[in-house]
Amino acid sequence: MTKQELKDRHNTIKPYIHRTPVLTSRLLNEISGTTLFFKCENFQRMGAFKMRGAASAISKLSEAQKSKGVVTHSSGNFAQALSLAALSLGVKAYIVMPSNAPQVKKDAVKGYKGEIIECPPTLEDREQAADLIQKEKGATFIHPSDNLDVILGQGTAALELLEDHSDLEYILTPVGGGGLIAGTALAAHFYGNNCKVIGGEPFEVDDAYRSLQSGKIETNDTINTIADGLKTQLGDINFPIIQKHVSEIIRVEEQEIINAMRLIWERMKIIIEPSCAVPFAALLREKEKFKHKKVGIILSGGNVDLGNLPF
Amino acid sequence: MTKQELKDRHNTIKPYIHRTPVLTSRLLNEISGTTLFFKCENFQRMGAFKMRGAASAISKLSEAQKSKGVVTHSSGNFAQALSLAALSLGVKAYIVMPSNAPQVKKDAVKGYKGEIIECPPTLEDREQAADLIQKEKGATFIHPSDNLDVILGQGTAALELLEDHSDLEYILTPVGGGGLIAGTALAAHFYGNNCKVIGGEPFEVDDAYRSLQSGKIETNDTINTIADGLKTQLGDINFPIIQKHVSEIIRVEEQEIINAMRLIWERMKIIIEPSCAVPFAALLREKEKFKHKKVGIILSGGNVDLGNLPF
Repeated sequence: MTKQELKDRHNTIKPYIHRTPVLTSRLLNEISGTTLFFKCENFQRMGAFKMRGAASAISKLSEAQKSKGVVTHSSGNFAQALSLAALSLGVKAYIVMPSNAPQVKKDAVKGYKGEIIECPPTLEDREQAADLIQKEKGATFIHPSDNLDVILGQGTAALELLEDHSDLEYILTPVGGGGLIAGTALAAHFYGNNCKVIGGEPFEVDDAYRSLQSGKIETNDTINTIADGLKTQLGDINFPIIQKHVSEIIRVEEQEIINAMRLIWERMKIIIEPSCAVPFAALLREKEKFKHKKVGIILSGGNVDLGNLPF
Repeated sequence: MTKQELKDRHNTIKPYIHRTPVLTSRLLNEISGTTLFFKCENFQRMGAFKMRGAASAISKLSEAQKSKGVVTHSSGNFAQALSLAALSLGVKAYIVMPSNAPQVKKDAVKGYKGEIIECPPTLEDREQAADLIQKEKGATFIHPSDNLDVILGQGTAALELLEDHSDLEYILTPVGGGGLIAGTALAAHFYGNNCKVIGGEPFEVDDAYRSLQSGKIETNDTINTIADGLKTQLGDINFPIIQKHVSEIIRVEEQEIINAMRLIWERMKIIIEPSCAVPFAALLREKEKFKHKKVGIILSGGNVDLGNLPF
């Protein structure tokens, strides 16, 4: 990976993504004692940064590969992202979803013309179903986070943030499957001016924190967190990048996530999903570390069920 | 009122207000068949356009008047706006509020250092209490909407919108006390290129619609609407401006307001209050009128009680 490769990838995907705004808040600066720059990926197409990685991965395929389509397994934002990116690039998308996925998520994928393949709700069943599509249709499998092209795409959010504010001392992101934080760490390494990247992770699913401690990929025994985008584990491709370029992971309690989410809703008047509130919660938990610093926060997404809010 | 006076007033209040962003949404354009430009006053200081009018009115006072403070009666956004504008301009603010006003509203005023005077919850009691403060303290009364300096201040939102998008064919605002729509109509008259101004109003409190029909200021017998910012009636100063420069008022049902609010929350990922959703609801109700037009919508505010949402 080079600085130029990241730049080129950004140019490639520009037609398919929004350059999202960077918002500031006097009140949240006062509350945190920090100068904050919020990169609003909740305003990204389909409502999350995942659009960047999906567009990046599809755009790298050969014409022969594109003609046979792409496949992934996801019940979350990547299902929508791959469907919309594929639609935008004129490619067929097959989305393996567990049969118990919420109807609203299935409808969103259908809205973007993704073809849903339902399977029983276990990881094994998902992988089998995705394998079958690859064999039967010749479609290319795109992993939601452990794929270098996806990682590069996710890194373009931090690239844009650093283009706008080159003097950031920290950038914070949530840590789920590891694609966003790995891409952000690469962007900060190439384009930052000694800019440290820190992850926020719920105590309830602190596999990434433990992985950095032990030096190998750890998993979660239970996944009882409101941050439903952060339940997955790191992968072989993103983990070494995270080990090399991420400074630290800060863990937060569930109530801290809800409080941070509510603060952003009430003070900034924008809608973010619970996973998205985790890095801001981490900053509030360790205020002293960030005092008087310039800090970028990637607001990862805004897809919430308004009928089921935690407040 | 002249074009230059509006421009000058804008320059005067610039240090005390945000120039709010104008957002667009591909999805809402598709749904409405219109090209929409949302002026985001929900991102304004204290969360609503009222900050503009309050800053405008206070900035016009003499030094002698400023030294004695300002007073208003309001339990809504203008209470917070006058408090924050007064604080920003180094002026004392007295806010007459009904004793049954929600604690969260009282706390917001106190947060901006406004001094609350409680009174029984009738208009007569409010006016008496405000009169008393004028006599005892020498404070200047600032009406939330029927005051020419307030009207000019509210008009600066549309002025900024037209600076950014000079070719708008319509601008839509909610209609409550009449300050915002009157100011918007003046701005469109001076700065628009044949730009029509249309108001949105709930059927449940359609006093402004009926006032335009009858030619005199009408009142509401009942005020059963979710749009709690729109329950007040027009005034002697703003009504003639509205008669002269507003093309039309479109009325909407309560469920249309809730649906429009939810659409904006879900698709744009921004928080708006029910009153703020009314003009977009009006546009959706009369889609044909706005088809293929360029339409600006003033998103008036984002102060909602997250614990009491209509969905």
